[in-house]
Amino acid sequence: MTSPAEAPSAPPRERRQRVQSAETGMAVLKGLAHLGGRSSLTALATHVAESPAKVHRYLASLMEESLVRQDTVSQHYYLGPEAIQIGLAAMRQADPIRAAEPCLIRLRESLEVTCFVAVMGNKGPTIVRFEEPGLPVTVNVRVGSVMSILWSATGRAFLGLLDESRVVALAEQELADATEDMRALLDAGDPIGALRRDVQQAHCAIVRDTYLRGISAVAAPVYDYAGRVCAVITALGATGGFDPSIDGPIAIAVRREAKAAGALLGAAA
Amino acid sequence: MTSPAEAPSAPPRERRQRVQSAETGMAVLKGLAHLGGRSSLTALATHVAESPAKVHRYLASLMEESLVRQDTVSQHYYLGPEAIQIGLAAMRQADPIRAAEPCLIRLRESLEVTCFVAVMGNKGPTIVRFEEPGLPVTVNVRVGSVMSILWSATGRAFLGLLDESRVVALAEQELADATEDMRALLDAGDPIGALRRDVQQAHCAIVRDTYLRGISAVAAPVYDYAGRVCAVITALGATGGFDPSIDGPIAIAVRREAKAAGALLGAAA
Repeated sequence: MTSPAEAPSAPPRERRQRVQSAETGMAVLKGLAHLGGRSSLTALATHVAESPAKVHRYLASLMEESLVRQDTVSQHYYLGPEAIQIGLAAMRQADPIRAAEPCLIRLRESLEVTCFVAVMGNKGPTIVRFEEPGLPVTVNVRVGSVMSILWSATGRAFLGLLDESRVVALAEQELADATEDMRALLDAGDPIGALRRDVQQAHCAIVRDTYLRGISAVAAPVYDYAGRVCAVITALGATGGFDPSIDGPIAIAVRREAKAAGALLGAAA
Repeated sequence: MTSPAEAPSAPPRERRQRVQSAETGMAVLKGLAHLGGRSSLTALATHVAESPAKVHRYLASLMEESLVRQDTVSQHYYLGPEAIQIGLAAMRQADPIRAAEPCLIRLRESLEVTCFVAVMGNKGPTIVRFEEPGLPVTVNVRVGSVMSILWSATGRAFLGLLDESRVVALAEQELADATEDMRALLDAGDPIGALRRDVQQAHCAIVRDTYLRGISAVAAPVYDYAGRVCAVITALGATGGFDPSIDGPIAIAVRREAKAAGALLGAAA
């Protein structure tokens, strides 16, 4: 399968060099992206800390592959149509479940909490991945469970931060179907609006005993490259043994991990 | 500025090799994008026509630069967060005016027609670049001119294919302000709806003497990476000496050039 030049017996120096050249080419491509997708040769060479002559040769390769174009008037280099295609392919396969997986494991291991990631399914917020510590609290939600929009922390995070009409429609339906006791847990004048404003201010949603008896939860949004909430990460525990306060260690960790998942999906920092 | 190894006196073989390695790295990156952003090593090696061992080394470099990640379960490679960032930067600086410029020059040179590219400005379709042949027809539009939504070919292309409420609002305003003579040029029952349907069917807009006296025009949409009409390319000429028919050579060329401009902006083929 390998040509003589590619065989494992090839001199290590040459193999290393080839990899280094590819990495330098990628560094030039990334440098151009970090400069806004458009730059002079001088500014780009400074940014990647290489000589202009060297960067110029790499740019010639990038232009050969249609990843970079050169403006005939300003002589500036800019990211070309193949760079858009690579980004589109990367966005299409960017998967919030995969991105959230290591975040859930870190939350479980560092805080020993039950945690999960949910996406907005056609019936409402739906758990798609679930992690439990060695000594889990007993809860009757699992992968596949559809959560309440109005009474779960997960649902409230979507309600407050995912700007889609179907989310509000789901909330209005839940409100119409709710018992008097459940309604009494919400703002009397503007139940949906008040929930949304709270979540928007805190940038996370917190519940104590409103959805699952004896359970508190903290939920934070995962944003994608388009600035849209594509998932919500939630941690939960037995009320009393679990601190769901907005500035407590659990809320801080959940927000940090939700942000880390977003970074893998191209969300703005 | 250049280190000894980078000086122009460096052996040509080494310089060529460096460029080749960068190009192979880019080919692997593009190959992964063309396979949907996710692939096994074997499928990717087949796609780029290189040995798996060679492709594996390049993938290690791409992973080093966070352009590619490997799924720990399936061992498949997929485009990583830096690939999204490169795409986002490329999209942000993708400029329909720059993309359309060579298209206008080709239209002018091959067909000897006056042509321009317009974008949707806050007052309506606005000409941002204008090309004229050696013997131009006299028209009273130029760069900066805002065109009619309802009576110009340019405006109708936006009306039919740019799905934004402000476009329809502009059309309704124009209709309300129009004289009886101007209204008589449109469908009596559903003037805006009929125009939109015509353009959607033909995928271009054609007018004969409706906007500028004695002038015919053909306009076609330029799509961006998001599938949105970001510009319209229009060719015009004196009615009689200019064939605006839907399957005539001018309409075919305008549609082809609008598509070529869109390809530079990441539009789907």
